[in-house]
Amino acid sequence: MDHVYKKIELVGTSPEGIEKAVENAISLASTTIRNLRWFEVIETRGHIEDGRVAHWQVTIKAGFTLDA
Amino acid sequence: MDHVYKKIELVGTSPEGIEKAVENAISLASTTIRNLRWFEVIETRGHIEDGRVAHWQVTIKAGFTLDA
Amino acid sequence: MDHVYKKIELVGTSPEGIEKAVENAISLASTTIRNLRWFEVIETRGHIEDGRVAHWQVTIKAGFTLDA
Amino acid sequence: MDHVYKKIELVGTSPEGIEKAVENAISLASTTIRNLRWFEVIETRGHIEDGRVAHWQVTIKAGFTLDA
Amino acid sequence: MDHVYKKIELVGTSPEGIEKAVENAISLASTTIRNLRWFEVIETRGHIEDGRVAHWQVTIKAGFTLDA
Amino acid sequence: MDHVYKKIELVGTSPEGIEKAVENAISLASTTIRNLRWFEVIETRGHIEDGRVAHWQVTIKAGFTLDA
Amino acid sequence: MDHVYKKIELVGTSPEGIEKAVENAISLASTTIRNLRWFEVIETRGHIEDGRVAHWQVTIKAGFTLDA
Amino acid sequence: MDHVYKKIELVGTSPEGIEKAVENAISLASTTIRNLRWFEVIETRGHIEDGRVAHWQVTIKAGFTLDA
Amino acid sequence: MDHVYKKIELVGTSPEGIEKAVENAISLASTTIRNLRWFEVIETRGHIEDGRVAHWQVTIKAGFTLDA
Amino acid sequence: MDHVYKKIELVGTSPEGIEKAVENAISLASTTIRNLRWFEVIETRGHIEDGRVAHWQVTIKAGFTLDA
Amino acid sequence: MDHVYKKIELVGTSPEGIEKAVENAISLASTTIRNLRWFEVIETRGHIEDGRVAHWQVTIKAGFTLDA
Amino acid sequence: MDHVYKKIELVGTSPEGIEKAVENAISLASTTIRNLRWFEVIETRGHIEDGRVAHWQVTIKAGFTLDA
Repeated sequence: MDHVYKKIELVGTSPEGIEKAVENAISLASTTIRNLRWFEVIETRGHIEDGRVAHWQVTIKAGFTLDA
Repeated sequence: MDHVYKKIELVGTSPEGIEKAVENAISLASTTIRNLRWFEVIETRGHIEDGRVAHWQVTIKAGFTLDA
Repeated sequence: MDHVYKKIELVGTSPEGIEKAVENAISLASTTIRNLRWFEVIETRGHIEDGRVAHWQVTIKAGFTLDA
Repeated sequence: MDHVYKKIELVGTSPEGIEKAVENAISLASTTIRNLRWFEVIETRGHIEDGRVAHWQVTIKAGFTLDA
Repeated sequence: MDHVYKKIELVGTSPEGIEKAVENAISLASTTIRNLRWFEVIETRGHIEDGRVAHWQVTIKAGFTLDA
Repeated sequence: MDHVYKKIELVGTSPEGIEKAVENAISLASTTIRNLRWFEVIETRGHIEDGRVAHWQVTIKAGFTLDA
Repeated sequence: MDHVYKKIELVGTSPEGIEKAVENAISLASTTIRNLRWFEVIETRGHIEDGRVAHWQVTIKAGFTLDA
Repeated sequence: MDHVYKKIELVGTSPEGIEKAVENAISLASTTIRNLRWFEVIETRGHIEDGRVAHWQVTIKAGFTLDA
Repeated sequence: MDHVYKKIELVGTSPEGIEKAVENAISLASTTIRNLRWFEVIETRGHIEDGRVAHWQVTIKAGFTLDA
Repeated sequence: MDHVYKKIELVGTSPEGIEKAVENAISLASTTIRNLRWFEVIETRGHIEDGRVAHWQVTIKAGFTLDA
Repeated sequence: MDHVYKKIELVGTSPEGIEKAVENAISLASTTIRNLRWFEVIETRGHIEDGRVAHWQVTIKAGFTLDA
Repeated sequence: MDHVYKKIELVGTSPEGIEKAVENAISLASTTIRNLRWFEVIETRGHIEDGRVAHWQVTIKAGFTLDA
C-alpha cells in the first residue's frame, strides 16, 4: 500500500535551548495527532531580554501518517 | 510556561490590492481560529484580465497559539 | 466576492513514479477535503532498496477553497 | 488541447506604491502582448531622494498564452 | 568564436504527466525558435478537478543560440 | 571615481500598510544617515489582533553612499 | 548505535524520462557503493535536439550508510 | 507610534555549542546596543581540530529598537 | 512619467573569464536591443577540457527601457 | 602555495541533540579523512517515536585539505 | 576566549571588473574599521552604457572582530 | 548509452582572483579524476589582511563521467 503523509508547521519555544523548543512542539502536537513520524527544522529565532536569550523559538515541520 | 504555535498557509484575494487580500485571508480564518497572532507574506501573484489586474492573490502564513 | 484558499502540505508515495505519488496524495486528501483546486510540487525524494528505487516520495502543497 | 504559456520579466515603476507599479508594467505590456493571464511579484525595490521614496520598482513575471 | 545564448521561460501543460508537459512547451516553441539547445525545469504545478490531477503545468527555462 | 555603498537592514512598521511601513523606516533612518539612495524589500510580516492586521512589519535593506 | 551517512551528488540521464534517469544514476552507483538508502532530486534539466527532448538529466543526492 | 528597528549581523563563537555561541554574540553586542529585542539564526558553521569540533560559529541577525 | 523595463536572460561565454563572458552577452544583445541599462549575474558555470577551463558560461539578466 | 579543499556531505545522528549528531559525523569521518578543517550545518531533521524525538539527523558539509 | 564578529554589507564598484570592485569596497571600509577578516560575495550586478559594461557593482558581506 | 555523472564540491584559492582560484581547484582535481566535464560556481569568499584581499576562495561543483 502507498502511504500518504501530512506535514504541519509548528513553532516550539523554550528558555533552555533549541532541542527543548523542538521537543515542546512535538510533545504538545502528539496529544492530538497520532503517528507523528519525523520533523524538519525550518527556522531558529528567539527573544532577547536584558541582553540575554529569554526564549528560543524553533519552527519545525512535522509529518504524520494520514492513512492509518 | 512554554508556548507552542501552529502556522497555516492561506491565500487571500482582492481586486483592491495586497493589504486587502491579506486582510481578507485573516478575517475569514479568524472566524474559526482563535488566537491568530502574526502573519508572514510568502508570495504575491495576481490574475490579469483585459490588460488590468483583476485580483491580487497573496499567500501568507499565519501563526496562532496552540496551547491556549 | 473575494475567495480565500488554504494550502496544506502532503507527501504522496508510490513505487511507480512521481505522477502516481502525487495522484495518491491528492486522491486520499480528496476523501475529506472538498474543493481541492491546485497543487505545487515542493520536493521529490525516494527510498532505495537493493540498488533500485523502492518508492518515490513527493511533497506537494495543495490548495482548496476555504469559503465555499 | 494542451496550452503553452510564455513568461516575461518586467519592472514597473511608480511614485505611488507597489500596486500602481505593477499596474503600470502590465498596462504597457498589454499594448503589444495579447492574452496576458497572470503575474507573480519577484522583487520590490525603490529609489530614495531626500529621505523619501521617490519611486517604487517592482519586478514581476507575467504569463500569457503562446498558442492562441 | 564565443557563443551567446538566450533563455526564455515557458509553461507547458498536459493531462498526462510532467515529461509530456515539458515536451509540449518545447514542441510549440520550436515552431518559431531555431536552435533550442537545453531546458531546466523551474517549477511543477497542476490543477485538480474532482480529486484528480486535471493537467500538469511545468515551468521550464529553454536556451537557444542567439548568434547563429 | 569608484563609489562604495553600505547597506543596512531596517524594519519599518505601520498600521496602514506596506508602503507606509517602508516610508517610516526610511524617514527615521534619514535623520542620521545622509545619502540614502535605494532600498530593497526583504520580508513582509505583521501582527494580528482581534482578527485584523494591527500593524505591518516590513524589512528592507537601504543603501547609502559611503564615500561622500 | 548512532549511524552516520554520506551523501553524494549524481546526474543520471535518459531519453525516456525523469524516473528512468534517476534509476540509471542509482543503478550505476550501486555497483560500487553498498547500502544506498535514499535520494533527493536536486535539479531536472535536459538537452533538446530537433525540437524534442533528446535526453533528461536529473541531478540527485544519494545517501548511504558510512558506518556499516 | 510606529516603531522602527535595525538589524545587525553577528557571528558568535563557542567551543560548547550553538546556544552558547548565540548567547556570546548577544551578550557582547548588549554592552553597546540598548534595546536588543530578537534574533534569527542565519548560519551554523564550525572549525574542526583533531577530528573534533573546536568551536561553533553561529551567524545571527539581531534586531533592536531604533527610535527609543 | 513612470518607466517600465523588460529583463531578458542571456548566457555569455568566453575562454578568458567571467567579465569577458558578460561583455560578450551584452555586446551581442546590444546589436538588436536599444537602451540596455543594467545586468545582474545569475549563475557562473563552465566547461572543462583536459583539466583546464575551456570556456566560462555566465548567465545574466539584462534590463532595458520598454517605453522609450 | 594555493590550497585546494574538498567538501563532503555527511549526516550525523544522535538521540541526544544537534551538537552530538554533528560530532558523531565528524568523528567517524576523521577515521579515514585527514585534515578535516571546517563544517557547515545544512539541514536539521529527526525521527519521532511515541511523541518524542527518537534521534536527531543533522546534515553537514565538511571541508578538508586536498593538497596535503 | 570566544570571539564575536560583526558582518556589514557593502557594495563596491569599478569599471575594471569584479575583483577590483571588491577590493574598492574593502579598501574604503578599512579606513574606518579595524580587523576586517573575511568577505563573502552576495551579488554581482552592473550598469550598461552604449552596449558596454560601464561599471561593475559587487555586493559583499565583510566580517570583522568585534571584541578586539 | 545513458551516461551517469558524479559531482564533487571543491574550494580553490588564489591571491590573484576568482578565475585563478577556480583553475587551481580544477587543475589539482584533474590529477586524480579523469573526465572532468563542467563546473558550477557555488560561492565566492575571501580572506582579508591589512585591508586587502589576501586570497580568494571559490567553491565550485565539478562534474565528471562516472561510467567511462
